[in-house]
Amino acid sequence: MMTAIETKARAARAAANRLASVDTATKNQVLRDLAAALATRRDEVFAANRADMDAARAAGLPGPKLRRLEITPQGLDQMIAGLRQVADLPDPVGAVVKEYTTPSGLAVRKVRVPLGVIAMIYEARPNVTIDAFALCFKAGNACFLKGGREAAHSNALLADAARAVLHDHHLPEAAVEVITSSDRDEMRHLLTLSEYIDLVIPRGGTELIRFVHEHARMPMVQHFHGVCHVYVDEFADRDKALAICVTGKTSAPATCNATECVLVHQACAADLIPELVQRYTTAGVEVRGDDAVRKLAPEAHAAADDDWGHEFLDMIVALKVVPDADAAIAHIQRYGSNHTDAIISENPDRQARFIAGVGSSCVLTNASTRFNDGFQLGLGAEIGISTSKIHAYGPMGLEELTTQRYVVTGSGQTR
Amino acid sequence: MMTAIETKARAARAAANRLASVDTATKNQVLRDLAAALATRRDEVFAANRADMDAARAAGLPGPKLRRLEITPQGLDQMIAGLRQVADLPDPVGAVVKEYTTPSGLAVRKVRVPLGVIAMIYEARPNVTIDAFALCFKAGNACFLKGGREAAHSNALLADAARAVLHDHHLPEAAVEVITSSDRDEMRHLLTLSEYIDLVIPRGGTELIRFVHEHARMPMVQHFHGVCHVYVDEFADRDKALAICVTGKTSAPATCNATECVLVHQACAADLIPELVQRYTTAGVEVRGDDAVRKLAPEAHAAADDDWGHEFLDMIVALKVVPDADAAIAHIQRYGSNHTDAIISENPDRQARFIAGVGSSCVLTNASTRFNDGFQLGLGAEIGISTSKIHAYGPMGLEELTTQRYVVTGSGQTR
Repeated sequence: MMTAIETKARAARAAANRLASVDTATKNQVLRDLAAALATRRDEVFAANRADMDAARAAGLPGPKLRRLEITPQGLDQMIAGLRQVADLPDPVGAVVKEYTTPSGLAVRKVRVPLGVIAMIYEARPNVTIDAFALCFKAGNACFLKGGREAAHSNALLADAARAVLHDHHLPEAAVEVITSSDRDEMRHLLTLSEYIDLVIPRGGTELIRFVHEHARMPMVQHFHGVCHVYVDEFADRDKALAICVTGKTSAPATCNATECVLVHQACAADLIPELVQRYTTAGVEVRGDDAVRKLAPEAHAAADDDWGHEFLDMIVALKVVPDADAAIAHIQRYGSNHTDAIISENPDRQARFIAGVGSSCVLTNASTRFNDGFQLGLGAEIGISTSKIHAYGPMGLEELTTQRYVVTGSGQTR
Repeated sequence: MMTAIETKARAARAAANRLASVDTATKNQVLRDLAAALATRRDEVFAANRADMDAARAAGLPGPKLRRLEITPQGLDQMIAGLRQVADLPDPVGAVVKEYTTPSGLAVRKVRVPLGVIAMIYEARPNVTIDAFALCFKAGNACFLKGGREAAHSNALLADAARAVLHDHHLPEAAVEVITSSDRDEMRHLLTLSEYIDLVIPRGGTELIRFVHEHARMPMVQHFHGVCHVYVDEFADRDKALAICVTGKTSAPATCNATECVLVHQACAADLIPELVQRYTTAGVEVRGDDAVRKLAPEAHAAADDDWGHEFLDMIVALKVVPDADAAIAHIQRYGSNHTDAIISENPDRQARFIAGVGSSCVLTNASTRFNDGFQLGLGAEIGISTSKIHAYGPMGLEELTTQRYVVTGSGQTR
């Protein structure tokens, strides 16, 4: 007998076969209709979210998690705007990536096609539910969304809204399935269904990634943590360095592209660090520094060993003095997470050395780590930032939710 | 304590870090020097291969497997030519895939970088050892090659030749590691080393793929079997159909892109099938047909249930009459392997319907399934044909052995 989740996965596979050939105009209308439905059903959305928030508060969920769980009026406006933005993006399905004729006279096209069924496992952030559905659907994929049990009411309501719109368009409701249970056995079972699910995207912390890594029998593209570094070189522009280091933490401390650790070349440490620490402190950021930092700025806290390579996701930053660029690169190779790293330097050789030495999905010179983001890098939207090297590395937008195959037109060629 | 294989994997990781920045000219020279070395060491290669062949014959290895294991003089010439061809191909590393400036003034480049360490697990085909090393190395990757215990002497000699050339160029010999043991425990252990190995490519039959699928803890791109179909539509050109169906099997029956099953529209069955079966029989191909086929061509054998979806890799073909194009598509969806499928038809609507209905990595109209091949499709060379949708789908050449990351140049941008 098929389990309930297997039945759902099978329905998702059938839905994916149907979605692969839905025309762009219909897909865009579904996204716009869902935007309109959410605008109409605002009170329902807030009521469902309130039920989640009340339960989370009662369970003593910490502040940053509560803030991610909450759907504010502005947050709902952003979800609605996001749906319309994805509707406005070009459809990746059917796009011809390459086109050429071989010496044998074959007309070859390399064409984007949907992946099929995508399972996404993430935290209690209801906005991700709508973003992920919008991107998966526009790229012709069905999706299984498993988004943190604390968000169960919110996610169920949002998925219900999406399924109602699909139904109105005579499209299979199984195109989106929200799983609200957090039963580990059920998750393990889901992760074995490689016959129906083409890709799993875990997006979250160490424990979640490890669990999926351990149990998934289908390909995985992980969105792991961002331990993002800024290296301030001896040839840095002081003002740029200060602005980039401070705002890289303060503008959105709980995001994966926030700056978690700043490495300062010893040649500019004395000039830079006292002011940097002061600015951080004024902005409410706790600085955890090594001995060299604390000599220059005694108000900094002492960094513990596990502050290096730590994703704080909070108003905390680690700060260290390094003897040279190579030491900065070595530190990042050891403690970084292949997410995002930046160098502040006006010296092209140093920039090149840093770029060559640091293998992250996004390496920046003289810009904030916060720019490793699908919107900021021009992808239009993103489902998250991949720290896997296979299939997609960095922000995953619509194109990264497709694959490419060969469509070949001959005139009787044999070999 | 580190196991021997872990030590090797760690060395491969270090070698990969070094290979990532080796310039194109040096890489090409290594490949040309290896070609020259193999030309000089012909007798050694044949002697090593003879040791494998003798043992394989004594062990009773079947004919097709013996033919794959043997290094003939022509086979060695092809390996040598292959090395020179890969040297002549453009270097994918550092290629800029996209380049643009964002509204925020960031100069964004999406750049190809090596994957790192690639493990490849394949059958006793020594030519694959050289091809795989050439492609992995040119794309800046270190490789772990595990190629069928029957080929142990041949592979050890070939790897030794490669390592000697690497040594001469002051490059790490750990850039290529050949594993000759077929110990399952050792394989299982290798497949857990996700810290050192970025990608595993299993290329082979059901049992091998299942084993790797079960045990691999790193990403996998599988090169699974090719159950390639040709559908002869009612609007087919008769001569094209006959030529494509017959040569698609006879030109290289043991390859993954050989035609294994022909589906014929009932409207042209009476006209086509008697001659098709006669041509197959004349060429030495055993035809296994359904009842409708055997009514038209009594010399055909009766197909058993498991002949549908079977990869014969031999001079055998399955043949079936279908009521219409949809039935052909449904047959392929059920029995195909997402490898290669072709339609023979002069009718554009039928072609489009077939292309939309069949999801394989390569879909052809009016051309042989044998064209799904890196050389034939213009990739220059291939490490195999992926039947995974993630990362690469279809022939994998140099580009598919890299990933892409973002290199961003700012002028002090914050957000």
